Amino acid sequence: MSLSLLEQLIESLRVLPGVGQKTAQRMAYHLLEREREGGKRLAETLGVALEKIGHCAMCRDFTESEICATCASASRDRHQLCAVESPADRLAIEQATGYRGLYFILQGRLSPLDGIGPRELGLDALAARLAEGEITEMIIATNPTVEGEATAHYLAQLARQHRVRPSRLAHGVPLGGELEYVDRGTLSHAFGSRSEMT
Amino acid sequence: MSLSLLEQLIESLRVLPGVGQKTAQRMAYHLLEREREGGKRLAETLGVALEKIGHCAMCRDFTESEICATCASASRDRHQLCAVESPADRLAIEQATGYRGLYFILQGRLSPLDGIGPRELGLDALAARLAEGEITEMIIATNPTVEGEATAHYLAQLARQHRVRPSRLAHGVPLGGELEYVDRGTLSHAFGSRSEMT
Repeated sequence: MSLSLLEQLIESLRVLPGVGQKTAQRMAYHLLEREREGGKRLAETLGVALEKIGHCAMCRDFTESEICATCASASRDRHQLCAVESPADRLAIEQATGYRGLYFILQGRLSPLDGIGPRELGLDALAARLAEGEITEMIIATNPTVEGEATAHYLAQLARQHRVRPSRLAHGVPLGGELEYVDRGTLSHAFGSRSEMT
Repeated sequence: MSLSLLEQLIESLRVLPGVGQKTAQRMAYHLLEREREGGKRLAETLGVALEKIGHCAMCRDFTESEICATCASASRDRHQLCAVESPADRLAIEQATGYRGLYFILQGRLSPLDGIGPRELGLDALAARLAEGEITEMIIATNPTVEGEATAHYLAQLARQHRVRPSRLAHGVPLGGELEYVDRGTLSHAFGSRSEMT
């Protein structure tokens, strides 16, 4: 028996992350009952977005142009390059900090077991860019996980080869956190990296 | 400044129920990074579904045909009619019980303050159907809320006018529940409606 259109809609909503059968059902009914206009807009935007959005030729971020707005901007500092794992990380840094340099989005992290090596992360393009000599500092903002750290070490080596200064985000106790509940690794790191008060 | 296509996509994902800025962002990145095929299918299905899915002329449920599959089915008992507030309620009853009769979906509940009266719930069509004389029992399965109860009373009157026997879902202690944690209203109702053990 073929699925009804409603069942097809529920099924196709399940590609969204964190959406199971029940939520998909609720979404489908919500769109049909109360948000037909918004739903139509979503269908159109999604179709166009998936067709048109590709990767920036410079930083590998998502963009509908060949070069993304940040890379094309004349007002960004072209001597600093911040390497992050994902577009979401880039956005978080952009929103939280006053960073005015450029980005490089790895779209992943080194993970040899999953077949993700330097080539999959576009590190040859990154190396070519470092070789141009315009960049003086590479801020390595990969996640503080085992694979993220390994990627950070690899990137730092790459930077040094091209006489670019590598730097890494500070690790430590989060603001507003309580020492009692901070995990041991972080606390030990924060203790070791203590700075003098002036 | 006009929004980029990615920002438009994030914005339009927010029509989904329970989806805020952060979740919409995560969904957009997920679709772009890992689910382009599924996303395309979603865009197409959603567009077609919103265009084609309307209400069944008999039960007011969502369907792409004029009469939904349940109403058109020859194997359903045409003497019983179950009135529910929403398609989701209909689905819950269909999945949980062995009910083989027909349904009527109110698509809401009586709520004079919000301008929802008998006409908005299609009760004239329901009355016409009851008048046909085929239906002998109307199972009223509106929610046990103030408005749902008011709707149930109205429906029961309507049924009696047409010599149709109205019935209501039993209220009581949920299976697996603990008396200690059941709310007072439910417990009092369950106590009053106790049945003899045989």
